[in-house]
Amino acid sequence: MRGYSATDHVMMARALRLAERGAWTTRPNPMVGCVLAHGDEVVGEGWHVRPGGPHAEIIAIEAAGERARGATAYVSLEPCAHTGRTGPCADALVAAGVARVVAAMRDPFPQVDGSGFDRLRAAGIEIVHGLMETQAQALNRGYVSRLVRGRPWLRVKLAMSLDGHTAMESGESKWISGEAARMDVMRWRARSGALLTGSGTVMADDPQLTVRLDGPAEFSPPLRVVLDPGLATVARGRVREGEAPTLYVHAANAKPPRDFASERVAVPADGNALDLAAVLRVLADRGINEVQVEAGATLAGAFLRAGLVDEVLLYVAPVLLGTQARPLFSGLQIQDMTQRMAMRLEESVSVGGDLRLRLYPVCEVAADAGAAAFAGAAGQEA
Amino acid sequence: MRGYSATDHVMMARALRLAERGAWTTRPNPMVGCVLAHGDEVVGEGWHVRPGGPHAEIIAIEAAGERARGATAYVSLEPCAHTGRTGPCADALVAAGVARVVAAMRDPFPQVDGSGFDRLRAAGIEIVHGLMETQAQALNRGYVSRLVRGRPWLRVKLAMSLDGHTAMESGESKWISGEAARMDVMRWRARSGALLTGSGTVMADDPQLTVRLDGPAEFSPPLRVVLDPGLATVARGRVREGEAPTLYVHAANAKPPRDFASERVAVPADGNALDLAAVLRVLADRGINEVQVEAGATLAGAFLRAGLVDEVLLYVAPVLLGTQARPLFSGLQIQDMTQRMAMRLEESVSVGGDLRLRLYPVCEVAADAGAAAFAGAAGQEA
Repeated sequence: MRGYSATDHVMMARALRLAERGAWTTRPNPMVGCVLAHGDEVVGEGWHVRPGGPHAEIIAIEAAGERARGATAYVSLEPCAHTGRTGPCADALVAAGVARVVAAMRDPFPQVDGSGFDRLRAAGIEIVHGLMETQAQALNRGYVSRLVRGRPWLRVKLAMSLDGHTAMESGESKWISGEAARMDVMRWRARSGALLTGSGTVMADDPQLTVRLDGPAEFSPPLRVVLDPGLATVARGRVREGEAPTLYVHAANAKPPRDFASERVAVPADGNALDLAAVLRVLADRGINEVQVEAGATLAGAFLRAGLVDEVLLYVAPVLLGTQARPLFSGLQIQDMTQRMAMRLEESVSVGGDLRLRLYPVCEVAADAGAAAFAGAAGQEA
Repeated sequence: MRGYSATDHVMMARALRLAERGAWTTRPNPMVGCVLAHGDEVVGEGWHVRPGGPHAEIIAIEAAGERARGATAYVSLEPCAHTGRTGPCADALVAAGVARVVAAMRDPFPQVDGSGFDRLRAAGIEIVHGLMETQAQALNRGYVSRLVRGRPWLRVKLAMSLDGHTAMESGESKWISGEAARMDVMRWRARSGALLTGSGTVMADDPQLTVRLDGPAEFSPPLRVVLDPGLATVARGRVREGEAPTLYVHAANAKPPRDFASERVAVPADGNALDLAAVLRVLADRGINEVQVEAGATLAGAFLRAGLVDEVLLYVAPVLLGTQARPLFSGLQIQDMTQRMAMRLEESVSVGGDLRLRLYPVCEVAADAGAAAFAGAAGQEA
């Protein structure tokens, strides 16, 4: 730990909060916040709002004007060093005369990845990084996952009764959760790059899979992804309607109808089971940082068995549905307690009359180096 | 609402906290706390520790000595007016020269039930009651239930996995919850007048059903109650061992073995199903205020179906056990969402790595007048 002051912590916390304001709009870019300060006095701040728009640092520099000179810049992510849709922020910080840059984390983006720090250092600016890195990694867990692991952060949203059922045997699943929980789900949808479901859910529930908020707010409509090996549901469903784009993922041997208008992509399949890791690679290649799965027990269980679930967002309604009802995850071959699948309870909050749990699976997943490095970065105090 | 002062609230809250110290030892008596104060200054306090021992008021009066004169007495329950194992507290308060008595609730005990207030009033003491009555009713919900409804407060303790299972299909159920949760269960056992289980659990798990705390603490060993219609398990089980008493409840036609040493009682039965309401009447007659059910899904489900469950104490371990595992409650005939059994989530807290939920069923129970009156008293702000 370098000697960060209390002021450093306060300012970085502020930069992180600013960054989060972009949660619904920055993708595929990371959320970034920037605070320029002289000691305790903030002289400019900003956050990245949307791709193609100005970066957080530029907004903060413009807000500070002449007062940027000699200031400390607190940034939640390493300033960029490349010219993308905007010029390099590192150069702008140098030009503004900033004296010191405190960054929460290095940007894993290949065209940055330390070169932002290098460029600032070369200009004689004092650089420190790693302050509140755990929080910064968590904030951009989707972006980091996509760049480090080559797949999006995968969140499975489920609503269940107290006795662990997601629906009646009949498939009837509406209104397990209360209104407050359903609105909460909308906010989680809004921060997702993609909302993923299966053809079974399209047939049974016909979800719209769009973000419907109870007030005006800007958000990028998430891509709707339907896993439909045989393209059996392409002619139906509210999932094709509205403004949000829809992507069907199918097996190579599926025959699309002649008038098929939606976007589609084929991935390898074993019989009727799509290669889920391949699905996620496709989504990562499209710049999807976070995927929210809203599907039935079969697909949720398949993702879980494949070790691809990063987070479970579980709404628990305090009702009993009885033993004939449908299970939370299907197909888990667990015979004794040693095979049980453990999770870590990250958070438990009341949402209306329901309970919302956030859980991280802690079972052993395919331990390739990337995954291990990622878990290390996101899960531990740096 | 009478005009209670902030001091009145503070003192009554203190009396209620004192009362709760008797939770493990006062039964079958209610928990009672008493604070004697002149304005903001406490001059004496006490709580009822055990049956036969001095009442809270007497302890407070002795602690206050001469300063009891002119004081306000805050009592969590109406002072008694009858001579039981000790003399009437109302008379003691009069003799001590107390000027005013603030009580949280009337004592439903037939030999008190307003006569304590009457006796104080007759002596010229100012009486008000109803301050923090909801809390006082909740504190003694077992005692109130026994006197008003003729049956104990029934709490079902369950431990389940995230997917709503209490055990593997094999019956293996040890270690679903963590150590912290198991110690927490011990504290709930300590406040129970009876710990109730079924013969199936005795056969499968062989529980000791005793209070085993991790430090020295005084408690009355709860009565262990085994529902065993045919007296099939009386020759086995750790449930008969140790100091705590054990009561077997069986059907009238069961034949006890010749050398049967434990206490037993017969209740009406329909085939192999004991009349659970009759079981609870038997326990109420023995002065049991709170019953904690620790049994399998069959018995837990039977109590639930019978509308006899007042509280569910549910430990949720963040693990998945899969679909072959055992359900939380068996035999709930729920076919569609309108028949679902709703509960109110009263509390959700982390206990070690687990989650502890307290839930109150809100399904329609047999609505006799007593039950309705009780629900009204305990569940609503007075």
